[in-house]
Amino acid sequence: MIKTDILIIGAGPTGLFTVFEAGLLKLKTHLIDALPQPGGQCSEIYPKKPIYDIPAFPEILAGDLVNNLMEQIRPFNAGFTLGERAETLERLDDDTFIVTTNKGTKHHAPVVVIAGGLGSFEPRKPLIPNIANYEDKGVSYMIKDPEVYRDKKVVIAGGGDSALDWAIFLTNVASEVSLVHRRNEFRGALDSVEKAAELAKLGKIRLFTEAEVVSVQGKDTLEAVVIKHNDAEKGETFLEVDDFIPLFGLSPKLGPIGSWGLEIEKNAIKVDNAYDYQTNIPGVYAIGDVNTYPGKLKLILSGFHEAAVMCQSAYQRINPGKRYVMKYTTVGGVEGFDGSKKEAKKEVVQSILA
Amino acid sequence: MIKTDILIIGAGPTGLFTVFEAGLLKLKTHLIDALPQPGGQCSEIYPKKPIYDIPAFPEILAGDLVNNLMEQIRPFNAGFTLGERAETLERLDDDTFIVTTNKGTKHHAPVVVIAGGLGSFEPRKPLIPNIANYEDKGVSYMIKDPEVYRDKKVVIAGGGDSALDWAIFLTNVASEVSLVHRRNEFRGALDSVEKAAELAKLGKIRLFTEAEVVSVQGKDTLEAVVIKHNDAEKGETFLEVDDFIPLFGLSPKLGPIGSWGLEIEKNAIKVDNAYDYQTNIPGVYAIGDVNTYPGKLKLILSGFHEAAVMCQSAYQRINPGKRYVMKYTTVGGVEGFDGSKKEAKKEVVQSILA
Repeated sequence: MIKTDILIIGAGPTGLFTVFEAGLLKLKTHLIDALPQPGGQCSEIYPKKPIYDIPAFPEILAGDLVNNLMEQIRPFNAGFTLGERAETLERLDDDTFIVTTNKGTKHHAPVVVIAGGLGSFEPRKPLIPNIANYEDKGVSYMIKDPEVYRDKKVVIAGGGDSALDWAIFLTNVASEVSLVHRRNEFRGALDSVEKAAELAKLGKIRLFTEAEVVSVQGKDTLEAVVIKHNDAEKGETFLEVDDFIPLFGLSPKLGPIGSWGLEIEKNAIKVDNAYDYQTNIPGVYAIGDVNTYPGKLKLILSGFHEAAVMCQSAYQRINPGKRYVMKYTTVGGVEGFDGSKKEAKKEVVQSILA
Repeated sequence: MIKTDILIIGAGPTGLFTVFEAGLLKLKTHLIDALPQPGGQCSEIYPKKPIYDIPAFPEILAGDLVNNLMEQIRPFNAGFTLGERAETLERLDDDTFIVTTNKGTKHHAPVVVIAGGLGSFEPRKPLIPNIANYEDKGVSYMIKDPEVYRDKKVVIAGGGDSALDWAIFLTNVASEVSLVHRRNEFRGALDSVEKAAELAKLGKIRLFTEAEVVSVQGKDTLEAVVIKHNDAEKGETFLEVDDFIPLFGLSPKLGPIGSWGLEIEKNAIKVDNAYDYQTNIPGVYAIGDVNTYPGKLKLILSGFHEAAVMCQSAYQRINPGKRYVMKYTTVGGVEGFDGSKKEAKKEVVQSILA
């Protein structure tokens, strides 16, 4: 059982900054995220895209924003449960909570804050009737460890960066790489498209455009796919494969959180914005893009503010009756849980006549 | 008459970021600040102090924070009325406002936002009964243009950085520099204290410690001051001077804004935090450290959020009935009023078979 003061669900920018604000109040934090690395969308979907509306950054790449936040929170030694999805919320008699992930990891805390962004990102799946039978038996929707495909026959479907980049990468790993896309045009970085085209010419990527996988087959595990061509004259292609990886992008879903008894409005969690961003369950807060309230803006900078306000309320819940006087980092510096201390150089008091 | 969409009172970090958020909504802005440069406290009081709680900056000097914000808002060509204090607010029949400064400059706008920080910074004045008679006639509480003191006999009072640094600087400008401080110890940067001590030894600064100016004299303008020593045996020193500059620091005051009919609580302006940070006067908002509401935190990052929310409400007021769909800078980039355009490199759509 992992124990902490504030359990943060979602390790995007808002969740990460919560570690900092909690740390200033000497509260320990632990984060859960379904993705294998911190940063949420910023790391997973657009690490190399510039953002222009983070205050005091005329321009910053989403990946750098995450790196800066990780550096800022380092002194507070937050724990991470990554690659697992928060599945259930259980409220104990003493008004503390146990959150269990899809892999069974249990977390215990007096305060839970959902900083879940647009929700957990679920892969978009192709509409093939029996595909669920082969999930994790040859069919997967994201690539976590490419070594799994060593010397295998692999077919990737999709027309974006993800499909292109993995097809290129796997030519050095798999024994056979096929790429299937419904259109003739690919939507990706120029160099990825060019590189894939070159590998196709060299016969290292078997390319099927204006075509789609319409059937998956096999006794227990996947053994073959059927590719249907738009051009009726070409008909269908039967392809023996070990692995089928549709990479159609991710689509956000509120997921299991939706059934935790929280008040939901338009796929977001209602909170009390007039005070502390608490949900209808006392002790459970929601901040960042996952929450909603009158006038809500889904901006990263709003998540930062909500995190700061929410931590003050959490402090009161965890330390009932104790009064916290807010200190400014400009005056008092920042003391890490790791013993580190950052502060301004102190002015000296010295006799001028010495 | 200066005309704009959103008139911002206070050019600290919150006021500056308001220019950006307004700019994204194509609203023009103009700022008024009593200080001679933008940045508020960050520029005036602690430009070289590090701040640790700006999101995604593990450490940033207050002065650099201001520089970054100035760079971020550059595309939106905001106007500035600097070195003037917003004095009166007048509401016209069409529900627009005229704000007039202490120097008579008039500004007209449909929306006024007060981002006044802790208020306008008023110099702390020594308790000398008739000192007001000599203000601007030899007595001043801040140095705007040191050339005013060229070849003059100047006495500075105070024991902090400001008194030390100006005493040092004026040795190259004034014909005579005296420095009076109540204690023997000075509170300032080590090198300033050492430099002042050295100049005192060389006779370039006449030093009076454990002493204070108790009287100012002169027919129309200042002609002399009387310095009283703590040591009764030393008695008093009569000093012929042209200028007396007490530098005892600045103390924040809400100032004239306090009499604009706004609801005030504990020296701050009450706003509706449950929606848009509007005050009791429709069309007048208050954001940043100057406002108060349940759970208010006087943090720069909260001012940024309040600015973003407030601009959306201002947009509705200025464009009644028009629906604004928020766009993300990551997707749409930023278009400046100066014709500039910042945006992410577009992905290409290209045939892989080309």
